[in-house]
Amino acid sequence: MGLIVQKFGGSSVADAEKIKAAAQRAVQAAREDNHVVVVVSARGQTTDQLFGLANEITDKPSNRELDMLVSTGEQMSTALMAMAIHALGHDAISFTGAQVGIVTDSHHTKARILKIDTKKIREELDSGKIVVVAGYQGVDAYNNITTLGRGGSDATAVALAALLKADLCDIFTDVEGIYTADPRVVPEARKLDRISYDEILELASLGTKVVQARSIEFAKKYNVPLRVRPCFNNSDGTIICQEAKDMEEVVVSGVTVTKDEAKVIIRGIPDRPGLAARIFKEIARNNVNVDMIIQNIGTHGHANITFTVPRAELDDAMSALHGIQQEISAREISSDSNVAKLSVVGIGMRSHCGIAEKMFQTLADEEVNIQMISTSEIKISCIIDEAQSKRALKAIHKAFDLGKK
Amino acid sequence: MGLIVQKFGGSSVADAEKIKAAAQRAVQAAREDNHVVVVVSARGQTTDQLFGLANEITDKPSNRELDMLVSTGEQMSTALMAMAIHALGHDAISFTGAQVGIVTDSHHTKARILKIDTKKIREELDSGKIVVVAGYQGVDAYNNITTLGRGGSDATAVALAALLKADLCDIFTDVEGIYTADPRVVPEARKLDRISYDEILELASLGTKVVQARSIEFAKKYNVPLRVRPCFNNSDGTIICQEAKDMEEVVVSGVTVTKDEAKVIIRGIPDRPGLAARIFKEIARNNVNVDMIIQNIGTHGHANITFTVPRAELDDAMSALHGIQQEISAREISSDSNVAKLSVVGIGMRSHCGIAEKMFQTLADEEVNIQMISTSEIKISCIIDEAQSKRALKAIHKAFDLGKK
Repeated sequence: MGLIVQKFGGSSVADAEKIKAAAQRAVQAAREDNHVVVVVSARGQTTDQLFGLANEITDKPSNRELDMLVSTGEQMSTALMAMAIHALGHDAISFTGAQVGIVTDSHHTKARILKIDTKKIREELDSGKIVVVAGYQGVDAYNNITTLGRGGSDATAVALAALLKADLCDIFTDVEGIYTADPRVVPEARKLDRISYDEILELASLGTKVVQARSIEFAKKYNVPLRVRPCFNNSDGTIICQEAKDMEEVVVSGVTVTKDEAKVIIRGIPDRPGLAARIFKEIARNNVNVDMIIQNIGTHGHANITFTVPRAELDDAMSALHGIQQEISAREISSDSNVAKLSVVGIGMRSHCGIAEKMFQTLADEEVNIQMISTSEIKISCIIDEAQSKRALKAIHKAFDLGKK
Repeated sequence: MGLIVQKFGGSSVADAEKIKAAAQRAVQAAREDNHVVVVVSARGQTTDQLFGLANEITDKPSNRELDMLVSTGEQMSTALMAMAIHALGHDAISFTGAQVGIVTDSHHTKARILKIDTKKIREELDSGKIVVVAGYQGVDAYNNITTLGRGGSDATAVALAALLKADLCDIFTDVEGIYTADPRVVPEARKLDRISYDEILELASLGTKVVQARSIEFAKKYNVPLRVRPCFNNSDGTIICQEAKDMEEVVVSGVTVTKDEAKVIIRGIPDRPGLAARIFKEIARNNVNVDMIIQNIGTHGHANITFTVPRAELDDAMSALHGIQQEISAREISSDSNVAKLSVVGIGMRSHCGIAEKMFQTLADEEVNIQMISTSEIKISCIIDEAQSKRALKAIHKAFDLGKK
């Protein structure tokens, strides 16, 4: 007998018809001789509506009370889901995070799961019930209700799957699965049958809009196979799992563009030890995350430093730098938000050469200028002009034959 | 330092403005040097909406899952109330029934409170917080969420007041207080400053629409003074408390008409022992509650029995009786739903004579025929024609000078 965890996001339980369809999935899995744990999010816009209620009361609600308020959204979904399963003739029981012993730290609105007591779930599964658990929530050591922040229901599902040693954790979503590129931009993009945890983490924009990054890391750590599946049809979706030998034969799994970074350029600083350290200490002190960094030696013993930060943090970064401009003797500090990061990802890169060359040549043929480059074991990223990013994405997708199986 | 429990019903927390006004009451009581516990119901129509969601899923939702669903209504109110108190600059913390240790039996949708662990509430009160508790809900011994049925938030408030030995339990409502008669029918009806537990229990239609009868009994048992107050102005409302010596000087406290009963008449049964017992055994076996009973000896050794039952249970009563009509040799079984019960109530009756005489004479003067009479130590009730009930009510109210202080 297998054990499957099924997670239904807010859009998959938005109304009575969708809840009934989701219940059907759970009952089907149970009838295929599986123990089934269902993790549900709040219905559709419920969480936003609850935040709206809070804002009618005060613009600065306490995080503890916000958690008390919004956690009702998932609780409602669990009860409705259990009722829908009952109506299909299968036994089921709903639990809040507190009832099922999901203990978190006390960081309200962004708590992390510390432990889960799976005894109660096991008992109910063994008695033949489908167990419906509220996603996104838990309790801290003092029994205060906490929530896990964005993507928190994924975290609940993956943590339960890991601790229950589930055979599979199904993440039902409103997409067909994980694609070689964003199909809205690249029509010939192909749905992947399988992808490794590492690849999907690198393919951030393709994967983590569907599954929360922290949950993928957790699944990787505990080796829980995830399956991203559509809730609107019966297709198989994409399995996210440990890399296998045959996966390495696929050199590039996907290509992605992100537009949430900005470039900062510091020109004409003296080429002497300690200045780079001073710059990035100041950046860190202002809680700005830095991604890529490039240092060039310029003319007359002066250097230029270029780096990227999240666009949302650019203003903080710039004011931090202007504060030390004199101290570091920088001639000019400027920024550019019109950049995009184009990445190719594939675990096969570890054992194949020539990927970077092919990528750079393709971009050159398209007359796309590469502003910055960074590489990891399984990824090559280039910062390019945002206006050229769509064209570049299509060209790279074609160059690596990603549309063909 | 005093301790006050304040209960706000659904209409008193229906929207953000009302929640803010309620929070103001709590903060005011706290600034008057009181520990304050606030008990809240679900906002306005929330509970009905939640039942509606369940009905979209199934027409036979399980009671456990219904409790899981509708208990979110009060939880939302607690969080919003705590936020509103924070916004007024006072510390506050919200709790679900489960968090505050309100343990009930397992009768989902109509559970009864078994015990409350007040330690947590005391700690939070001692640390200077206003404690906001979800009404209407608790958990059973297995940590399943339960609800207390209609009027359940009153039960929560009174139980907390009793266990915390509160000086007062304020029940905020949308009426000014308890009146000598229904002011919509009797314009000269007067608001009472004080009334005893026993009187308000007898004045069912005047009192228990405002406070649940079970909660009044509980308050009486633990001697918790209740105050029924309007949420829309600062007036004092009506205090419900143990009877005091001076209360006995008021002979009649109020007069009330209820129209939820029906009369059953069994004519021409043999006048021999055991038949009445047989009749009411059959009635009880069908779960029909009987209120007044009258037996007359008729002609030729035959008797008539007349009794009243709740209108909603009349059909059950009649079919039960028709089933034994032959056995009890009854000539005729008929019923009349067009009856009303007019009652005068007052603890002063215990030591004053002539109340019944005055009531009967007043009805006679109004040409109102009395069909049945029943009396208790502090109440006289007459069954009369429903069509005459308004006129009778006004006449009795006037006859006892209830409009004058």
